[in-house]
Amino acid sequence: MSDQIIIFDTTLRDGEQSPGASMTLDEKVQIATLLDEMGVDVIEAGFPIASEGDFEAVSEIARQVETSVIAGLARAIPADIDRAGEAVRHARRPRIHTFVSTSPIHLEHQMKKNQDEVLEIINATVRQARNLCDDIEWSAMDATRTPLDYLAKCVEVAIRAGATTINLPDTVGYCVPAEYKAMFEYVRANVPDADKAVFSVHCHNDLGLAVANSLAGVEGGARQVECTINGLGERAGNAALEEIVMAVRTRADVLPYTTRVDTTQLTRASKLVAVASGFTVQYNKAIVGKNAFAHESGIHQDGMLKHAETYEIMRPEDVGVRATSLVMGKHSGRHAFKEKLAELGYELGGNALQEAFRRFKDLADRKKHVYDEDIEALIEDHITEDAESAKVMSLTVIAGTGGPQKAILVMDVNGRHVTEEATGSGPVDAVFNAVKKILPHEAKLSLYQVHAVTEGTDAQAEVSVRLEQGGRIESGRGADVDTLVASAKAYVAAVNKLMARRRQHAQAVNAA
Amino acid sequence: MSDQIIIFDTTLRDGEQSPGASMTLDEKVQIATLLDEMGVDVIEAGFPIASEGDFEAVSEIARQVETSVIAGLARAIPADIDRAGEAVRHARRPRIHTFVSTSPIHLEHQMKKNQDEVLEIINATVRQARNLCDDIEWSAMDATRTPLDYLAKCVEVAIRAGATTINLPDTVGYCVPAEYKAMFEYVRANVPDADKAVFSVHCHNDLGLAVANSLAGVEGGARQVECTINGLGERAGNAALEEIVMAVRTRADVLPYTTRVDTTQLTRASKLVAVASGFTVQYNKAIVGKNAFAHESGIHQDGMLKHAETYEIMRPEDVGVRATSLVMGKHSGRHAFKEKLAELGYELGGNALQEAFRRFKDLADRKKHVYDEDIEALIEDHITEDAESAKVMSLTVIAGTGGPQKAILVMDVNGRHVTEEATGSGPVDAVFNAVKKILPHEAKLSLYQVHAVTEGTDAQAEVSVRLEQGGRIESGRGADVDTLVASAKAYVAAVNKLMARRRQHAQAVNAA
Repeated sequence: MSDQIIIFDTTLRDGEQSPGASMTLDEKVQIATLLDEMGVDVIEAGFPIASEGDFEAVSEIARQVETSVIAGLARAIPADIDRAGEAVRHARRPRIHTFVSTSPIHLEHQMKKNQDEVLEIINATVRQARNLCDDIEWSAMDATRTPLDYLAKCVEVAIRAGATTINLPDTVGYCVPAEYKAMFEYVRANVPDADKAVFSVHCHNDLGLAVANSLAGVEGGARQVECTINGLGERAGNAALEEIVMAVRTRADVLPYTTRVDTTQLTRASKLVAVASGFTVQYNKAIVGKNAFAHESGIHQDGMLKHAETYEIMRPEDVGVRATSLVMGKHSGRHAFKEKLAELGYELGGNALQEAFRRFKDLADRKKHVYDEDIEALIEDHITEDAESAKVMSLTVIAGTGGPQKAILVMDVNGRHVTEEATGSGPVDAVFNAVKKILPHEAKLSLYQVHAVTEGTDAQAEVSVRLEQGGRIESGRGADVDTLVASAKAYVAAVNKLMARRRQHAQAVNAA
Repeated sequence: MSDQIIIFDTTLRDGEQSPGASMTLDEKVQIATLLDEMGVDVIEAGFPIASEGDFEAVSEIARQVETSVIAGLARAIPADIDRAGEAVRHARRPRIHTFVSTSPIHLEHQMKKNQDEVLEIINATVRQARNLCDDIEWSAMDATRTPLDYLAKCVEVAIRAGATTINLPDTVGYCVPAEYKAMFEYVRANVPDADKAVFSVHCHNDLGLAVANSLAGVEGGARQVECTINGLGERAGNAALEEIVMAVRTRADVLPYTTRVDTTQLTRASKLVAVASGFTVQYNKAIVGKNAFAHESGIHQDGMLKHAETYEIMRPEDVGVRATSLVMGKHSGRHAFKEKLAELGYELGGNALQEAFRRFKDLADRKKHVYDEDIEALIEDHITEDAESAKVMSLTVIAGTGGPQKAILVMDVNGRHVTEEATGSGPVDAVFNAVKKILPHEAKLSLYQVHAVTEGTDAQAEVSVRLEQGGRIESGRGADVDTLVASAKAYVAAVNKLMARRRQHAQAVNAA
């Protein structure tokens, strides 16, 4: 058997399914592109029948991604499978992933079907999918609570019907490693054509065992691991891609497997997914947490200075952690700034560079130390700004114990300057009320988050805002040394997206 | 062998060692008291020789805790062991925990000792400790990178010298479960008096395997698990107490062990440690994450409605999660408010109730929906306010794009009203500068965090601030619908603590 593990990333499907983690089309395409670049073998891009937005995301990713297999999820329902097939049609390497529950508790309470009926469903749906696509994955939902002999029967039927990958998920995060390994050993030993399919693990972290279970499944003969960046996913999340990949890499002596993943991209992927989903990563998260490579105690520091290996089993640079360097201040020139941008991976020329430099000088006037992260926030903030839409020109806020808090906002709306004043409970509420007066909308605020880009009271604040209107979610980001200005920018960015969407929709209706 | 696992919590020692996670004496005592109440068997309260603060914390916890064993950590150095013995002396059940490195890489690069010299050190230090205390734990630092035959020799010497617990930590988070289990099996089989000591696991989560490794060690014969609340700890942290306890409880069928921990206190403990350490818990953290029991996808919700067990292996109430209920508004009366307080676990009478009710009415005027969490923040905020010290009376902030931001602050300092005005980079900086003018100090801000207590733009903000002065760290919290007012309160609370500490110190010097 090959020692290569196929890395199947489901950040955009199982990850996005976390309550509150939904992402925009642009964010999904950006993440898929990075996953492709970093060597992820299969990207599950969404659940096409779930919504128009999911369908659109899967199709768009299928069109844009160059190397990775693009999978679309489908229940064991003919319409689901057709829709998934349609969504992945334009992928260079398409896959349909269909699933059905196999455990007695799901059959009885949710599906109201008996075991023979489910076998028939597996046969029919896998055949249908196979007529649309050569690469078919079939999953036995709640496999770990399914009697082994019946599970083997299901797998046999799926392989005979044409499934090329067989996934046996621990849907409720219930397994311990020895059980999970034994399940794969049993099924692979008891299914006649087991070697015609690749077996796959899919683990949830409800008891903190997702990574150990995944690796145990691989020891039991599985060769695909389903996982997500940052362990994003419903409840306690899925097995974390970065932990699986680094465990295999770091312990190659006892885990003799390989992956194609470029580990130096893990930190970048983690940041991108954290920002897009709004799910921040805790400091003490393995591999990608802020403290993952930090040592405090005198003893450990002493050891580190004497010989790094005394306490370090991985090097920060292996996962793409850059040393934070104090880079520039108000005396830094255009040339140094351009070089720093290149080092950070941004290529700007002409007006864009000019404008970025102006913003950098402005920041350097207001902030003592300008770190790499500050420059990144400044550039990202600028990129998300749409030149044609409404913009914050100036903001004054009067806040404090006197209440009600008041905001006076000047915006540029299609070239026209509009000023409004509003009050609210707290300064953020006042700012948002002022935006609402200038750009009336019905959207509900579903997320408001403040991150400090660096440390200290004069740190730039990065604000994320998520708005919901008629089932459509749009998010916006803004950065500034003034939290309230960053809040206004983020809120306006999200409203701009909602309005652009409304215009698109109106055009589509007019055209029809 | 007994099937009871001894739960050894090291949140206050290994957890607090995380860069940025240091806690105050009060916070440590509060956490230790809760750990004791919830049935944790051993509390490692600190590393007494590390600092005066650590010594003080261990002694104070030793005096106050009723049932748990209180352990103090010591290197293999006579002065360390004496200091640890002195710190735990007043505990009802004291323990000295001493350790030394045993791996070749540590011996060569850090200790510069040979194997025989280390055996002699183990013998001498364990004997010294045993003369001070009957309950002695000895740890082989970096045990998992130590040759098994030498490790067994070290353990033999430690047991012969009087160690009652033998801890074999995976110091660098390097192990996989099968290895860790095999190590315990080997050592227990090859040490003559192995059954005279309890063996202990201590795992770090660098590769995401801490919980699986801990359970594998128990299968290998260990009966003590060292862990921390929220998995707090250096780098990627330690094994999470809540995950260990819930894994054993949920999978009693395949993990036939028990613990004494009252699981309904896990959520409370998690929140307390998150606030004290400033390390927030990510949404998708197992057991105690905000999303740990949340279901999004239509399929899962459907299953949950039909039969909870289809997707739920634990019940939220088992870990102490309360349903968030919309409770009160501005028309709620004193009686309803008092009942709600009792439900939330607060018993206030007389003036304290009067004052809390006034603050609640004030909040209800400014905030549409008042949730349980809002009331908790309001009470906690009040409890931390010291009646005798400086207080925020009123604050006005002018912020926005015009800059520099300006704050006008009125404070009550020992009964005298003082007004100051200050500017800054951003409104928070301006507010803190105004506080500094009124209460001059040299402290450096090492942490500034904003959490929303509930959702929506009119949510109360809870701000945590941490100040550092001459190696002393003090933290403060404040809550208000206005982020800037909450920031001022939090900053003033921390400055008050610093000044109280300075007064104590001055008194001590005068008395001497």
